[in-house]
Amino acid sequence: MAESWSFLDTFDPNFRPLVVIELAKGTKEETIDWFTKRIVDKKANGGAQLLIKPLVTENGNENIYLVGASHLRLLLGAETVGLVKECNDNSMRTFTYSSRKTFKDFADDNHNFLTMAEGQYIIKHELENLRAKDEKMIPGYPQAKLYPGKSIVRRLLTSGVLVQIFPLHDREELKKLRHSWYGQVKVGYQPLDEIRCYFGETVALYFGFLEYFTFALIPMAVIGIPYYVFAWEDYDKYVMFATFNLLWSTVILEVWKRICAIMTYRWGTLLMKRQFEEPRPGFHGVLGINPVTGREEPVYSSIKRQIRIYLVSLPFVCLCLYFSLYVMMIYFDLEQWALDYHEENESNFSSLMLFVPSIIYAVVIEIMNRIYRYAAEFLTSWENHRLESSYQNHLVLKVLVFNFLNCFASLFYIAFVLFDMKLLRQSLATLLITSQILNQFAESLLPYWLQKRHKKRMKKRMCSLKTDVDLSLVEQVNLEKEMGTYFGTFDDYLELFLQFGYVSLFSCVYPLAAVFAVLNNITEIYSDALKMCRVYKRPFAEPTANIGVWQLAFETMSVISVVTNCILIGMSPQVNALFPDSKMDLILTVALVEHLLLAIKFIMAFVIPDKPRDIQIKLAQLEFESLEALKQQVRATDMYNSEK
Amino acid sequence: MAESWSFLDTFDPNFRPLVVIELAKGTKEETIDWFTKRIVDKKANGGAQLLIKPLVTENGNENIYLVGASHLRLLLGAETVGLVKECNDNSMRTFTYSSRKTFKDFADDNHNFLTMAEGQYIIKHELENLRAKDEKMIPGYPQAKLYPGKSIVRRLLTSGVLVQIFPLHDREELKKLRHSWYGQVKVGYQPLDEIRCYFGETVALYFGFLEYFTFALIPMAVIGIPYYVFAWEDYDKYVMFATFNLLWSTVILEVWKRICAIMTYRWGTLLMKRQFEEPRPGFHGVLGINPVTGREEPVYSSIKRQIRIYLVSLPFVCLCLYFSLYVMMIYFDLEQWALDYHEENESNFSSLMLFVPSIIYAVVIEIMNRIYRYAAEFLTSWENHRLESSYQNHLVLKVLVFNFLNCFASLFYIAFVLFDMKLLRQSLATLLITSQILNQFAESLLPYWLQKRHKKRMKKRMCSLKTDVDLSLVEQVNLEKEMGTYFGTFDDYLELFLQFGYVSLFSCVYPLAAVFAVLNNITEIYSDALKMCRVYKRPFAEPTANIGVWQLAFETMSVISVVTNCILIGMSPQVNALFPDSKMDLILTVALVEHLLLAIKFIMAFVIPDKPRDIQIKLAQLEFESLEALKQQVRATDMYNSEK
Repeated sequence: MAESWSFLDTFDPNFRPLVVIELAKGTKEETIDWFTKRIVDKKANGGAQLLIKPLVTENGNENIYLVGASHLRLLLGAETVGLVKECNDNSMRTFTYSSRKTFKDFADDNHNFLTMAEGQYIIKHELENLRAKDEKMIPGYPQAKLYPGKSIVRRLLTSGVLVQIFPLHDREELKKLRHSWYGQVKVGYQPLDEIRCYFGETVALYFGFLEYFTFALIPMAVIGIPYYVFAWEDYDKYVMFATFNLLWSTVILEVWKRICAIMTYRWGTLLMKRQFEEPRPGFHGVLGINPVTGREEPVYSSIKRQIRIYLVSLPFVCLCLYFSLYVMMIYFDLEQWALDYHEENESNFSSLMLFVPSIIYAVVIEIMNRIYRYAAEFLTSWENHRLESSYQNHLVLKVLVFNFLNCFASLFYIAFVLFDMKLLRQSLATLLITSQILNQFAESLLPYWLQKRHKKRMKKRMCSLKTDVDLSLVEQVNLEKEMGTYFGTFDDYLELFLQFGYVSLFSCVYPLAAVFAVLNNITEIYSDALKMCRVYKRPFAEPTANIGVWQLAFETMSVISVVTNCILIGMSPQVNALFPDSKMDLILTVALVEHLLLAIKFIMAFVIPDKPRDIQIKLAQLEFESLEALKQQVRATDMYNSEK
Repeated sequence: MAESWSFLDTFDPNFRPLVVIELAKGTKEETIDWFTKRIVDKKANGGAQLLIKPLVTENGNENIYLVGASHLRLLLGAETVGLVKECNDNSMRTFTYSSRKTFKDFADDNHNFLTMAEGQYIIKHELENLRAKDEKMIPGYPQAKLYPGKSIVRRLLTSGVLVQIFPLHDREELKKLRHSWYGQVKVGYQPLDEIRCYFGETVALYFGFLEYFTFALIPMAVIGIPYYVFAWEDYDKYVMFATFNLLWSTVILEVWKRICAIMTYRWGTLLMKRQFEEPRPGFHGVLGINPVTGREEPVYSSIKRQIRIYLVSLPFVCLCLYFSLYVMMIYFDLEQWALDYHEENESNFSSLMLFVPSIIYAVVIEIMNRIYRYAAEFLTSWENHRLESSYQNHLVLKVLVFNFLNCFASLFYIAFVLFDMKLLRQSLATLLITSQILNQFAESLLPYWLQKRHKKRMKKRMCSLKTDVDLSLVEQVNLEKEMGTYFGTFDDYLELFLQFGYVSLFSCVYPLAAVFAVLNNITEIYSDALKMCRVYKRPFAEPTANIGVWQLAFETMSVISVVTNCILIGMSPQVNALFPDSKMDLILTVALVEHLLLAIKFIMAFVIPDKPRDIQIKLAQLEFESLEALKQQVRATDMYNSEK
């Protein structure tokens, strides 16, 4: 394969390409020279001290570069990013180069001590931390301003010189992973540790949550089936089911925190220190002094941002919510029309027609969700948040509120305004199933098919991916650079969140929802796995210790579902029959039960510890050790001073 | 004064006594020799390297010792306990001896760099961390077992050899503090920084909270007064008042967190690292291995503790709650009897008699609270918690639940079972005012009077404290060792918590409660100040960054008060008149409003940041610096390795 690269220098002959950098066609020579020099330059000179090689294809150099690093460089980088690894005594510790011998599986010649994903994460971190020194602009691009400390890669990306940076797949590893993940037909857990090694913690945690959530839904599904099979209509049975559901959803969310802690402790991310957050790539402003770092960097007035949020974004979101309600009213008109039509000309066709409005509405909801998603991304980006985390929080909030209303408003309307339980059940079923089918299609099958067609047309002469025989590196890079980019787990979590809403909000009316959710999630695991392995570019690993804001979102949903279920039960004729004389007593009883359930939920959330005892002990051990080390240090000073 | 001490050794002639150790009368010579040797021994030999001198009175040595430390020793101790001080650049940093020159007001000859309270805290910490080496028992007391690493002072305390350790007052400082605190009649803030310097952060934070809470109640009181003066009975006015109250109570609790962060940042405790928690003194168990430290120490099975908690404590608490409800029913019988009596023989006496049951009940409640308090302390101590924090949490929970029911059950009964708003208002007023008077009396005036009498009888020949003229050290120590011990801020916070309950739970019925609360708190500040300065021994300073579990308790109370106020308003005839046709609509509206208010509360608590922006920036600065320092370190390693 060596003949396909030109050797830039006399580096390490074991050069293993980890990351691909694609520059724009026609990038000036001086820019390329300067950029590659900065990448290979020594740390002491402000470089990244990485290895870089151009990828030379038969068409000549296409401005594609392969980046790697020496083994030593990666180990030092692992220390910089604060990687946590397992020691020989089975404890997890922050890796340092000086203590490298104490780590499990470490050997100076073991190049697999760091996984490929870790190596790629380290290279990404080092590239992003390549900072301008005294350059005032990117050489060759006077409009692309630089100032001391500005991340070069981010400026190159925003000025369009750098098209993309992405990590390479490891075809051997991927094949193994695919086989153990979805290659064989078997019932069992996903290979989460292998997924984590290949795709990083964020992706692995999503699949872990998906799997956990599916298992957690099984009891609900099992209890729900007889309600459908025997057509149970006794409301005391429904009350039992709903009560079980409400307490169960609290338990599963609390237990997830514990399971998450166990997983991320094993992966080392639970202990990983948060890195200092840099401004996000899109952030812009007048050059000023950052009060925290004292460095020169763009500063954007917080008041201006507040104005944009409250005077533009908030009204826009409200308008969208109003529009969504308007569409809902149209749906009800359609529904009424279909009902009238069915009554006038009763036939097989007309009874099929009854489902049409719901299906159309489900499709419209999905489309609106997707359009709104783009608008929300545009607006949040226009709000010009300095930190990625703040951007994400505002985006999630916007999207969640709209999606919640868009998906559930019609159900709330049917339940609490029309009081039509039959229609509620039917709408719920239609919405749930249609949205599941649409999602599976739009998320994985469609891109997979597009990808395949594209591949066939573009690279006729190349071996198709399906046969999995050896591809040359050039071919692999050219193939992967055309693949779609995986934009993170946001949409996947959102889908689960809405599903959780369908299952829990009206669980006492439609117990079968959990069954559909379980079935969907089983195929979801496979289609998501396919998507990760086949459709998208390999994403950079992203260390994470929990599912972040989604935990809060799921917990809020479970609180709302207590309220909705209590009201639904209170409205049922069977419960009404228990209080023949006084509606008031009924409502008071329902309110009392609701408050009790909420109190129990909060007490349970408070009482169940977020981390299992053994993880707590291990964390306490580490804390104790660091305190002891500090004391030893102080003691040494003490001794020194007392001997003086 | 020097002639009153015998000089044990040739130490620092500037010896300043900071802490007093009182050993039991008749303690064996060998024990005293061993203990004092361990205290003065070098750190390197496992000693505390402090100074100690016996206090010799005219009756000879009474086993009272004065402990001090050299200036250098205190500075090194400040590093050990992780004290945070202000630097020359106005930032707060953890003090280290090597960086001492960068701290504000530091000079090698400035012995006031550390406050006296800090010096005493350091000495307490060093004494408590004096650990057994290879001793198997305390010399002279074979029954007082030791094992390596056991805190000697704690074993001496539990075996009765050590009677008490307490810090000495500084009469000059105390006089100044008293003057600026309550010595002059003026309207203004308390000297919180001076209180903190003298009594430490926990006490200062309590007074800060008391002051803040009083100010926060003033708007409620001001709005409440016209309701009383003009005898407003319109329920729409009450609704306004209650709504304001509910939102206001959320705001004040959130704003308190911010003010608390500002204060504790200035005091340095916000940044102080949590020390590793040692087992509490009363903890006992079989000798085993602590999984965290790997050290030998008593181990007590967590299952045994759970059994004690759930099979003994929980039933006991339930029994007490039942008893409290039983007493309440007796009170209602009495109330009925008084009413009957008043109706039969109407006179001034009989209308006075109407108040008697309430007053008796208030007194009984106070007595029950105090008895239960002892029982709860006994039970929680018998549950054998390993950590002081866990002990405190279980104690607080037990006491809070009982106090809540005991104080408010009768009001709930009157409001929601008897529906008698007039009686509710009257009971509320009587309970609130009686409990305030009782508390002020029992807490400060009674001990102050006892203390004065005791002093007069015992120390006739001594100058009384009142004149504040010079006392010899011997006289001072003898006086202070007989003073009561201040057991922490628990009772003071509990009183405020119950007061908050009286003010907020039924605020729409009795707006005047806030007025009484404000008046009480103003005198409370003075009586508590008197108590701290005159009645009790000086307490050891205890660094703290917040009011801990009380924040949660107050927040819970404010959630409960939303529910109670909504129900009260819903029950009012005026609101009932708005829904003449349907009780159902009324209840549904009330429930809706309640849920909205709760949602607003939670959103407000979520949106208002817990720390003001400038404190956030300062904290981020420190974090950034430590990350940069780490990077510098890594970079140095990088360079070293790349040059190899």
